Amino acid sequence: MALIVQKYGGTSMGTPERILNVAARVKRWHEHGHRVVVVVSAMSGETNRLIALAHAVTDTPNAREMDQMLATGEQVTIALLAMALQSIGIGAKSYTGGQVAIKTDSSHMKARILGIEHAAIEQDLSANRVVIVAGFQGIDDKGDVTTLGRGGSDTTGVAIAAALKADECQIYTDVDGVYTTDPRVAPKASKLDRITFEEMLEMASLGSKVLQIRSVEFAGKYQVPLRVLSSFDTGKDGAFDTAWQQQTGTFITTEREHDMEQPIISGIAFNRDEAKLTIRGVPDQPGIASRILSPIGDANIEIDMIVQNVAADGTTDFTFTVNRSEYKKSLALLQNIGQDIGAKDVNGKDDIVKVSLVGVGMRSHAGVASKMFSTLAAQNINIQMISTSEIKISVVIAENYLELAVRALHTAFGLDRKTGETSVPA
Amino acid sequence: MALIVQKYGGTSMGTPERILNVAARVKRWHEHGHRVVVVVSAMSGETNRLIALAHAVTDTPNAREMDQMLATGEQVTIALLAMALQSIGIGAKSYTGGQVAIKTDSSHMKARILGIEHAAIEQDLSANRVVIVAGFQGIDDKGDVTTLGRGGSDTTGVAIAAALKADECQIYTDVDGVYTTDPRVAPKASKLDRITFEEMLEMASLGSKVLQIRSVEFAGKYQVPLRVLSSFDTGKDGAFDTAWQQQTGTFITTEREHDMEQPIISGIAFNRDEAKLTIRGVPDQPGIASRILSPIGDANIEIDMIVQNVAADGTTDFTFTVNRSEYKKSLALLQNIGQDIGAKDVNGKDDIVKVSLVGVGMRSHAGVASKMFSTLAAQNINIQMISTSEIKISVVIAENYLELAVRALHTAFGLDRKTGETSVPA
Repeated sequence: MALIVQKYGGTSMGTPERILNVAARVKRWHEHGHRVVVVVSAMSGETNRLIALAHAVTDTPNAREMDQMLATGEQVTIALLAMALQSIGIGAKSYTGGQVAIKTDSSHMKARILGIEHAAIEQDLSANRVVIVAGFQGIDDKGDVTTLGRGGSDTTGVAIAAALKADECQIYTDVDGVYTTDPRVAPKASKLDRITFEEMLEMASLGSKVLQIRSVEFAGKYQVPLRVLSSFDTGKDGAFDTAWQQQTGTFITTEREHDMEQPIISGIAFNRDEAKLTIRGVPDQPGIASRILSPIGDANIEIDMIVQNVAADGTTDFTFTVNRSEYKKSLALLQNIGQDIGAKDVNGKDDIVKVSLVGVGMRSHAGVASKMFSTLAAQNINIQMISTSEIKISVVIAENYLELAVRALHTAFGLDRKTGETSVPA
Repeated sequence: MALIVQKYGGTSMGTPERILNVAARVKRWHEHGHRVVVVVSAMSGETNRLIALAHAVTDTPNAREMDQMLATGEQVTIALLAMALQSIGIGAKSYTGGQVAIKTDSSHMKARILGIEHAAIEQDLSANRVVIVAGFQGIDDKGDVTTLGRGGSDTTGVAIAAALKADECQIYTDVDGVYTTDPRVAPKASKLDRITFEEMLEMASLGSKVLQIRSVEFAGKYQVPLRVLSSFDTGKDGAFDTAWQQQTGTFITTEREHDMEQPIISGIAFNRDEAKLTIRGVPDQPGIASRILSPIGDANIEIDMIVQNVAADGTTDFTFTVNRSEYKKSLALLQNIGQDIGAKDVNGKDDIVKVSLVGVGMRSHAGVASKMFSTLAAQNINIQMISTSEIKISVVIAENYLELAVRALHTAFGLDRKTGETSVPA
């Protein structure tokens, strides 16, 4: 018998009927002798409704008061789920973040968890009760309500699992796991049975919306076994399997079990919201990178990739990427900088995308980069920028080649779904 | 400069615009140097919305979880009002019932306040901040959220005022005070400038919806000066008067200031939701009242007035009133009882109403009853039952005479609005 932490998102809690479905699922686990802690989000749409109310009152809502208000969303769903469980004969008790207590710092709307008091939860579990905890929220040392930022319920789930030393933290979502890439772009995308924390972190940073980045960091740091699975599935062959080790979905863990048999690449991430800017013919002297990039950072524009080349004439070229929504502002700033430092030319492009291969396997395998480049070359796709890390290679290409590039790389690196595998949910 | 507790109901907090109006009013008080604590209800409709959600999940929602959920309504409005005040330059801080802490017993959904920790509030007031407290809710010794029952925000306001020894507790509503009777029934109803706690208590028990009964009891017990006034008024002649002693509305106090000049009767209350039941020809022997009335009480039916007459033949008749919604159930019960004890006859009427005169003046004035009866007789209204207390006389009459009776009594006891007085709001 295991101690399982289950986290259900806003879609799973979106209506009374869905809450009853979640209760029925929790009941099955409980009936099989597992101890279950459930972490829930607010009903889908509720957080946005509250934010709209605040903005109807003031353009600059105070962060402490925002948190005081936003925390009510989960306070409603924990109570509803407790009622639902009680109505089907399962003892259950709800806790707000403050009641647990989930102690955080005082950074309202982006608080970080400092510690979790878990004695009361353990007492309830010993008394055979299901414990329901409000995700996304905590309490600071002044007794003020705090929230963890968007997607913070994932982090609550992982943190509770770490505090209780749970056997597994299960994140229920509206997809049935983590995919090799977005199935809407590459129809042959396949669900991963396993992925490492590092890979999941790169996938999340690169745009995969399945898990909040901080929750993955947290799970990695505290070695919390993490599983992403669908709240709409009932398990293999439609029969619900309450042997927790037998669950489907994607299991996120420290190391692959059979590294040799795993593909080198776990997944392909991409980001459409990219734009690149280039400043050419800059005097190649110490401090020049800072003179170019500091004004961009000062304007609160986040820079992603940076590439620098030195030309034969002793000048240098800089190219960097920003979020596409910041493109015009960045270009205007860079044109001013270019004049100040006597650059030859400033230009940019906002019809580019970034495509990344992610996989811990590439650490030990040479030739991933060259295979990537040759695969793209075979499709006549020009690479405009390259950036690498230990477990990732990213390239910038023209936007209209995105689908072609992802599909070609997906096939080349052996990620395509095998015949007989279940198809991707619509 | 005074310490004022202001309570705003759900209608006053119903939209972002109205919340901004409340903020503007609070600001005027604050700017005139008064220290202000504001107690607020949930947005109108919100509590019903939450109850409907719970009932969509289960027919028998757990009371602890109901309170956990219901308390969110005020948690949203305290935050919104704090934001609104901050946006117009007033320092403000919101507190849930638990954060204050407003300590209650553990009777969920009808908890009673045991004590209020007010050190933090006083610190905020000293720092020139407006303090906003969630009405209707508290916390028990286990840290569980409790609620005080419908209308409990009035009680929160009075309890906070008592704890802080406030100069006045102002209850803002959608009417401009307490009226001699319901203006919809008697168009000449006039607003009372003053009323005693005892009278207000009788008026509230008899159906006046202006103040929650418990809040009046509480205010009387702790001698909290209480004022009912409109949140839509800006004061006399449209000019807002922040001299708190000069406010309009109705002031509720321990004693009338100029008792001699006051009318004997303060108001006329009535209740349409009445039905009466009669059992005749019952053997007049000890314990018979209990044998008749106990089964009614055991069925959780509340009995209001009771009248007993002894007939010449040694038998006795009982007549009592119940809420009209319980009439059929009560009649069936009484018919069974009648058979058991060999009563001659059991019958009832559900087209009756109760009309009551309320006034501390009748303590020292004989003749109120006879004036009431003769006034009704002059209108050919038959009195079916009579019940009296120190400051109240109630009669039961046929429903179709209600308006006529109230208007005739209103005129006879000198309550009609004088020419030149402001007219009743629509």
